[in-house]
Amino acid sequence: MIKVGIVGATGYTGVELLRILAGHPEAEVTVVTSRELAGTPVHARFPNLRGHIDLQYSSADTPLLKECDVVFYATPHAVAMNTVSNLLAAGVKVIDLSADFRIKDIALWEQWYNTPHASPELVEEAVYGLPEVNREQIKTARLIAVPGCYPTAVQLGFLPLLEAGLIETRGLIADAKSGVSGAGRKAVEDFLLCEASDSIKAYGVRGHRHHPEISQGLSLAAGESVGLVFVPHLTPMIRGILATLYAPVKNGTQVTQAQLQKVFEDRYADEPFVHVLGADELPATRDVKGSNFCEISVAYNEASNTIIVLSAEDNLVKGAAGQAVQNMNIVFGLPETTGLNIVALLP
Amino acid sequence: MIKVGIVGATGYTGVELLRILAGHPEAEVTVVTSRELAGTPVHARFPNLRGHIDLQYSSADTPLLKECDVVFYATPHAVAMNTVSNLLAAGVKVIDLSADFRIKDIALWEQWYNTPHASPELVEEAVYGLPEVNREQIKTARLIAVPGCYPTAVQLGFLPLLEAGLIETRGLIADAKSGVSGAGRKAVEDFLLCEASDSIKAYGVRGHRHHPEISQGLSLAAGESVGLVFVPHLTPMIRGILATLYAPVKNGTQVTQAQLQKVFEDRYADEPFVHVLGADELPATRDVKGSNFCEISVAYNEASNTIIVLSAEDNLVKGAAGQAVQNMNIVFGLPETTGLNIVALLP
Amino acid sequence: MIKVGIVGATGYTGVELLRILAGHPEAEVTVVTSRELAGTPVHARFPNLRGHIDLQYSSADTPLLKECDVVFYATPHAVAMNTVSNLLAAGVKVIDLSADFRIKDIALWEQWYNTPHASPELVEEAVYGLPEVNREQIKTARLIAVPGCYPTAVQLGFLPLLEAGLIETRGLIADAKSGVSGAGRKAVEDFLLCEASDSIKAYGVRGHRHHPEISQGLSLAAGESVGLVFVPHLTPMIRGILATLYAPVKNGTQVTQAQLQKVFEDRYADEPFVHVLGADELPATRDVKGSNFCEISVAYNEASNTIIVLSAEDNLVKGAAGQAVQNMNIVFGLPETTGLNIVALLP
Amino acid sequence: MIKVGIVGATGYTGVELLRILAGHPEAEVTVVTSRELAGTPVHARFPNLRGHIDLQYSSADTPLLKECDVVFYATPHAVAMNTVSNLLAAGVKVIDLSADFRIKDIALWEQWYNTPHASPELVEEAVYGLPEVNREQIKTARLIAVPGCYPTAVQLGFLPLLEAGLIETRGLIADAKSGVSGAGRKAVEDFLLCEASDSIKAYGVRGHRHHPEISQGLSLAAGESVGLVFVPHLTPMIRGILATLYAPVKNGTQVTQAQLQKVFEDRYADEPFVHVLGADELPATRDVKGSNFCEISVAYNEASNTIIVLSAEDNLVKGAAGQAVQNMNIVFGLPETTGLNIVALLP
Repeated sequence: MIKVGIVGATGYTGVELLRILAGHPEAEVTVVTSRELAGTPVHARFPNLRGHIDLQYSSADTPLLKECDVVFYATPHAVAMNTVSNLLAAGVKVIDLSADFRIKDIALWEQWYNTPHASPELVEEAVYGLPEVNREQIKTARLIAVPGCYPTAVQLGFLPLLEAGLIETRGLIADAKSGVSGAGRKAVEDFLLCEASDSIKAYGVRGHRHHPEISQGLSLAAGESVGLVFVPHLTPMIRGILATLYAPVKNGTQVTQAQLQKVFEDRYADEPFVHVLGADELPATRDVKGSNFCEISVAYNEASNTIIVLSAEDNLVKGAAGQAVQNMNIVFGLPETTGLNIVALLP
Repeated sequence: MIKVGIVGATGYTGVELLRILAGHPEAEVTVVTSRELAGTPVHARFPNLRGHIDLQYSSADTPLLKECDVVFYATPHAVAMNTVSNLLAAGVKVIDLSADFRIKDIALWEQWYNTPHASPELVEEAVYGLPEVNREQIKTARLIAVPGCYPTAVQLGFLPLLEAGLIETRGLIADAKSGVSGAGRKAVEDFLLCEASDSIKAYGVRGHRHHPEISQGLSLAAGESVGLVFVPHLTPMIRGILATLYAPVKNGTQVTQAQLQKVFEDRYADEPFVHVLGADELPATRDVKGSNFCEISVAYNEASNTIIVLSAEDNLVKGAAGQAVQNMNIVFGLPETTGLNIVALLP
Repeated sequence: MIKVGIVGATGYTGVELLRILAGHPEAEVTVVTSRELAGTPVHARFPNLRGHIDLQYSSADTPLLKECDVVFYATPHAVAMNTVSNLLAAGVKVIDLSADFRIKDIALWEQWYNTPHASPELVEEAVYGLPEVNREQIKTARLIAVPGCYPTAVQLGFLPLLEAGLIETRGLIADAKSGVSGAGRKAVEDFLLCEASDSIKAYGVRGHRHHPEISQGLSLAAGESVGLVFVPHLTPMIRGILATLYAPVKNGTQVTQAQLQKVFEDRYADEPFVHVLGADELPATRDVKGSNFCEISVAYNEASNTIIVLSAEDNLVKGAAGQAVQNMNIVFGLPETTGLNIVALLP
Repeated sequence: MIKVGIVGATGYTGVELLRILAGHPEAEVTVVTSRELAGTPVHARFPNLRGHIDLQYSSADTPLLKECDVVFYATPHAVAMNTVSNLLAAGVKVIDLSADFRIKDIALWEQWYNTPHASPELVEEAVYGLPEVNREQIKTARLIAVPGCYPTAVQLGFLPLLEAGLIETRGLIADAKSGVSGAGRKAVEDFLLCEASDSIKAYGVRGHRHHPEISQGLSLAAGESVGLVFVPHLTPMIRGILATLYAPVKNGTQVTQAQLQKVFEDRYADEPFVHVLGADELPATRDVKGSNFCEISVAYNEASNTIIVLSAEDNLVKGAAGQAVQNMNIVFGLPETTGLNIVALLP
């Protein structure tokens, strides 16, 4: 059994890690930390874990973390970077769900996260945990930076087109819609039911922290810097991200619907958690609620010579905790789907 | 492996059976029937099953059903009663999620369901599948009538009090709130998002089909006929039932909060799927969303000498498909929680 | 034009007052105060008022309040009681939407609101602003205590039965379901969309501040102290209260459905904002969303000799701001419906 | 008083017309027709109209329609075109909320609506009822085609840029999110609460009937044919459309945020129902729920040289019934805001 610790499991990615790991046959959560809730049973914070997780929160500096095989950080940004090195030194694998190690350009990270990076020397070592791109490096990684929720959905949608060289690398548009859980379990007025339900709005139109992360990934795939407009929207639902992606066909290139369909199917043929939908299907976030799947469809708009990709995931699962466990499985040599064969909850 | 057939798996209890059975280590769904969808892949109807259930719908008269070890009926009322006897004759166990075999008084059933009963001779044999009451009979049953969603929540809430003789058997009130999935996947105007969301209303105030079923169970527990007012409410959520139960303390009896707490804890001490909450906790339907748990709390209102019980379940799981699988586990001698250790999806 | 001031219009009852008064032909809002937002345009806080209310928030101690004809307090509890006397002394009518002057028994108020009352001498003078009961006193009142949201729905439902002496005064049960806006616009974790949507739960089972207010009103109507169990529920919707009321028929009394229907229709025949529904209709909170109506239906459950009343209102309108304006209309001798002929928003 | 008839007022645009006209000081609804509901009181279909509209449905062929000053068609497509000519011949003004007279190219209309047009001779005469474009023609129109919900939001967002010649006319993208009421009050499985809530999906990716209508309007504004990708999304809310629009800056043109802001403010300076938001504000559909406003913001994304416009409206008001009444006001020489000064319902 893999001994698992979780730092900061008091929010929504934390409870999702616990939900998934509670059903994982090869892993056991042995320690869960919280600055504020030390001594409290985990199920007092998350009643859905009653009968499944029989632990109390430990304080953040518990020595138990060093006895784990792997520690997940489900903390806000700029926390993991302060203590990860101690765990690595103790031989513990670290899987960080925060943004601390996602962006290779440290100056850029510091600009967006508005604080000096405490462990710049680890940034280069950290592996960006998108298995569909970096599976080989993940296998031997000590430190994994789990992609953000928007970046996962957007990258998985654009990657086949960029890798195949079918689209311009300028003029990419990602119109993304996220459920409110993406904002975390914070007592903020904007996310009250009376503020956020029965309404939709854009936010971050002038810039969003996930933009540099997405751009980094897309540029790597394209082999050149890409130009991307990214507009996130707060959608009146608990979970789910739907990314609607628009890309102009590359100048001088001809594409067909059938060809695009094949490009996507080939790219993800061996991926256990990406479903390429048929040409007459469209993804809905409900179809992946609670599961680790990303569902993708592609359509060619001939009149405008534009490719439209739809990419749906559960922001808390494939966009966070599920992908984190998928990384863990790869690191520990388990079948990648271990503990992740969760059927989405429908309706 | 138990070979499982499902008749009529096109609605919400059907997809829940499939979700649960897809993860059940000792059961395999081998045939799924539908009158209208024969030949269609199941995942075309339920995209969440893509990659989990690789079956097409068979026609309703497929001989494959007789080769199953157990067949679940997830049909509307007055369907199972027509064909169950053939399966029983072939040695197949039958677990019926409809109301056909729940009510022992056939005339009463015919009055509420407005049709003659096609298999009255099986009604007496059928075991009412509430494990917390009938576990022993379920073990040897050929035909199980899975309780309705409201009846499960209401009975589990009242039973400890009636069995302990602590409350009057007249003047019981069950104010129950159900998510819209209780109405099934039917294209009915009242259940459109624009009609049913952001609003609450009572219905069935003059009578509801679950009333005789609940009364039958409570009367058996009380050893005498009980008087119950039951008012269901359509609540703007997908899943969940919360039953708020009110009972006058029996004339001449003294009760205390601590005593009530102990009565409930003792009654359900060995029950794997009933959680009695602490005296300072209250159930919420979200805490059991997707899981087979029923969560119960009890409070004594001294000023009015009234006992208030709150009982929460997922109407599609403990109130339908989960309880059906729990029955299957009992029938086949498996640990009762096999395949049912599902953590509720929170948030 | 009536010159209107509003103290503390930063929450949901505040914005509702402004919405209603913006369309009131005989009133003009001249000053709106806020401790935190002084100097900010009102529409920056409430974008729906853009183009309708062209005011900035004034500080709480602005002398403009004394120049008003009437001042509404849309403040939390224990605020109005500190400053109301100054306004009254200046000849300003005061309509308080908070709980400060609702309960005549000061010791009881202090127990529930956990603070000494700052103006006990005004409590007796204050008129409880339920027009359906106190219309005559309201006409000449200087200080009006607008009823709470739950108390309005529950009292309007029980009053006809108590006044007619048809029910026992013990064993009354009010099972009430409220939208989340009843909790106000406060950044509290429990009321986040991800916590409160798609779920229902009871709260305040051991006691709720509206209980003594309701009991006071019902006891006055009954001419004796009543025994009431009141259980509120947090319902996943923005607005609306549905109160489901249960009352045992008075010992020795015979009732019929037709008689009950007539009792309610007679009681409210002249009431502009109470609709008694027909015997085959049931209220839904959506039918009164944004309007000042309370819709009521009554049913006689013969088997249990129990009367069931359903009472639906918009908690922010008839349960708060609309009722406040109704009081204002009465005080200033206007037709009671002035500015309140608002059609509910459906869907 | 303007005598108003409404044909087919059984759906959501119908009830909105009635809600708005009930409060209109210069109009009186004298007849409301329905094929199925003739003889039924209107408030039995729409309980929110109880006490406001005291009419019964008349049959579709009632002679009362010809006695009206104006008749609104709130019918499905391909109904109005069959009977409008009779009313026009009787001197009745007609305001059609369906699509029958929106598209000037009859062959194109017939292709999208899949039926021959019954009154092609009226199509040219009909005035497209977007007051922000066609106010002068509306004043003297006999027959008005009220724009669709998506076309209103999208056109109001793009028009200032096209008229000012600031953007390319190829590569326009409209990513639009609509509440479920846009689908009407039809008993269709896809729009059940359990299907459509807590999820988002795109639809009509291969083509949507509003595309030719939008293209027609944008092309007129641009003075040349425009290339538009339009992707609508079904969003889990009752009302509201948010259109997120992306346009490449015209080759060789330089723009600034301040300039764009001014272009929009100037364009809509005299428009009573378009609010151009400040540079630091973003529209949300809740801010216009129930009101006739369209709220627009514009942002310049320098890195991609792309302009992003956000346009929010209530699909049933500015996107349908409110705009229809706005047209009526213009036709009858009333102030354009008469009866339409409705404050959005927030929360």
